[in-house]
Amino acid sequence: MTATSEQFTVLTDGSSTSARGFKAGALAAGIKPSGRPDLGIWASDVECVAIGTFTQNAFAAAPVLLSRERLANPRAQAVVFNAGNANACTGDGGLEVAREMSRLAASHLGIAPELVLVASTGIIGVPLPVENVREWLPKLEITPEGGHAAAQAIMTTDTRIKECAVSLDIGGREVRIGAMTKGVGMIYPNMATMLAFIGTDAALEPAFAKSALKRVVDRTFNMITVDGDTSTNDSCFLLANGLSGAPTLTSDHPDAERFARGLEVVCTDLARKMAADGEGASKLLEVEVTGAASEADARKAARAVVGSSLLKAAIYGADPNWGRVFAAVGNSGVRVDPGKAALWIGSVQVARDGVSTGVAKDVASAEMKGNEVRMHVDLGLGSGSARAWGCDLTEGYVVENSAYST
Amino acid sequence: MTATSEQFTVLTDGSSTSARGFKAGALAAGIKPSGRPDLGIWASDVECVAIGTFTQNAFAAAPVLLSRERLANPRAQAVVFNAGNANACTGDGGLEVAREMSRLAASHLGIAPELVLVASTGIIGVPLPVENVREWLPKLEITPEGGHAAAQAIMTTDTRIKECAVSLDIGGREVRIGAMTKGVGMIYPNMATMLAFIGTDAALEPAFAKSALKRVVDRTFNMITVDGDTSTNDSCFLLANGLSGAPTLTSDHPDAERFARGLEVVCTDLARKMAADGEGASKLLEVEVTGAASEADARKAARAVVGSSLLKAAIYGADPNWGRVFAAVGNSGVRVDPGKAALWIGSVQVARDGVSTGVAKDVASAEMKGNEVRMHVDLGLGSGSARAWGCDLTEGYVVENSAYST
Repeated sequence: MTATSEQFTVLTDGSSTSARGFKAGALAAGIKPSGRPDLGIWASDVECVAIGTFTQNAFAAAPVLLSRERLANPRAQAVVFNAGNANACTGDGGLEVAREMSRLAASHLGIAPELVLVASTGIIGVPLPVENVREWLPKLEITPEGGHAAAQAIMTTDTRIKECAVSLDIGGREVRIGAMTKGVGMIYPNMATMLAFIGTDAALEPAFAKSALKRVVDRTFNMITVDGDTSTNDSCFLLANGLSGAPTLTSDHPDAERFARGLEVVCTDLARKMAADGEGASKLLEVEVTGAASEADARKAARAVVGSSLLKAAIYGADPNWGRVFAAVGNSGVRVDPGKAALWIGSVQVARDGVSTGVAKDVASAEMKGNEVRMHVDLGLGSGSARAWGCDLTEGYVVENSAYST
Repeated sequence: MTATSEQFTVLTDGSSTSARGFKAGALAAGIKPSGRPDLGIWASDVECVAIGTFTQNAFAAAPVLLSRERLANPRAQAVVFNAGNANACTGDGGLEVAREMSRLAASHLGIAPELVLVASTGIIGVPLPVENVREWLPKLEITPEGGHAAAQAIMTTDTRIKECAVSLDIGGREVRIGAMTKGVGMIYPNMATMLAFIGTDAALEPAFAKSALKRVVDRTFNMITVDGDTSTNDSCFLLANGLSGAPTLTSDHPDAERFARGLEVVCTDLARKMAADGEGASKLLEVEVTGAASEADARKAARAVVGSSLLKAAIYGADPNWGRVFAAVGNSGVRVDPGKAALWIGSVQVARDGVSTGVAKDVASAEMKGNEVRMHVDLGLGSGSARAWGCDLTEGYVVENSAYST
């Protein structure tokens, strides 16, 4: 979906601290061997309605277990986070480390530990050096301008920071949504993790916040694929502090839908940024599926296409190998009538009624030369539609993930 | 499973024509642009009990549709096959081409077209040049020594032919099982396909043949992964002509289990050969999962591990990144108790009770330096076990599949 300018304003230089009352800060605590910033806090001046969505991985990391437990009560005020170590596959000791991180941040901020969530990303299976957190956390300053520094400190192999903020009108008040994410990158070659922090000064009723976040995450972050490996640490946090003074949004409020769409604008922007910055990636791939028997089928098919290693390699080489697209859809388990499927690469239709349109290869290839490649599959069956984002598969991905670094 | 020498003899120089009464031959019909052999026939002197297993891809190719339809009656005598063109996504015209191929082969062999199956592999979405088949098929000679030539002609980007044969005793008679496969390779960069042709001179009751083949395929060919992309053309044929003179095997025959294990020995050997020859691969990866809650869980977990792009890249670099193994298992949807999982790389235990054993990285890495890497995951929950095979992810895979060749 795209925002019309009447509905949303995308803020210049937006960050996770764009909404009123949000502060952040980060420093280098020596958890990353590179000596780069790796420890941070993102916090609201006041307690927030807080919702989280987390990895489905059965080996969920200690910070995920702790944050999930805390959000049984949808209230929080801050997230303490680190890069360089995922605190995953670390057993009961790891859970105690996550708890200690939240206590240290709470006492630094002067709030209750129950209001502090934790997020970690980095190597798996290695104890997190909590002594570094003990030493450095008390020195950490948070400011309203600290969003960019925080976005820097959650990076692993990301090549650029990923932030976005919009402002919109709710009941005559300006409401802002500001967010940062880190993408599917590796650190100290080990694990891909997605972290997302979304702060808004809207006032949200928890049930609405939860349903809006779930819907938006399903349509944005859950539609990106870099390598098909889901992290043990994926976490997405939405904190709403109400400081805009706008009325509290419930599901049946007339502005509820507009807020949800604003949230989707932010998350779509960040999802695209993450896919484009996938490890080793040189191109962003956007796949739209229409005409599916259901929306669930459309989502499944779109994700299967962006996840196909063969297609990803073809994208890299600008090879308009459209059979790979149909093969991926055909494998995804969705309803298909081979005689009805159509495919466009960019604006060129390469298949109709399941067979080639006979378009020349170089014409189709030309649509794949830029740094964004769009494909559109129409299944000709129903009204289900979805979009998914991925990237090409390059030698860079292999090099980045195979180097043995000790 | 491994064969004991008392039960099976692996035949030196075994091929798809090792069993009595099987003949094959191939020639270059100009379907492959390289001018290499690309058209062949594999046939029995007499009519056979015939079973096939096929791709689940919704865009199943024309030869798959035709062969599947024919095998509603489990009788066949020959398979006509080609490489260089998959005859997939080719619509009704493609189906007519497959039918014509079977008619041409039938008239060449002097048998009924209903007894001829068809298999194709190669580029998708391009009409198969049936005129080349018309011109060359009548010149094709088949001989009992033709197995190797046939194995050559089904290759696409395979770097070596894949054949195996065993002999075993059934009711005092020597029975042979001979087979060939082609692996997950690309031709004229387009599509991965697995084809398997298994001929035996055992006499098999159709229901037993079907159940034995299904069980064995599930444990062998269906447990290999190169890139997670399932072809539109995968086909596995078992033809049993009974020429050994051994008694007919039914499921309750005392030798039925031995025959099924012989079949598994052949298919395991070929599955390993295919995984080892995966595109761009430098190493074979064998993953054993034990202690799963069920055999289905074990299969799912093992396949998830060999299919992880991150792990495959780590294997290439001999990086003992064991967190990636648990992350893949944790994603596979199987029952897991993180505190009970254990992992061995080769003979070195790297994780116990879900956490690191503290073994030095270089010790574990040393187990990954050869051209075969073994991993063993024990989930500590039940008695489900399975093995899966894959290969590493190298720059070669990317190069092979991204080159735009026109």
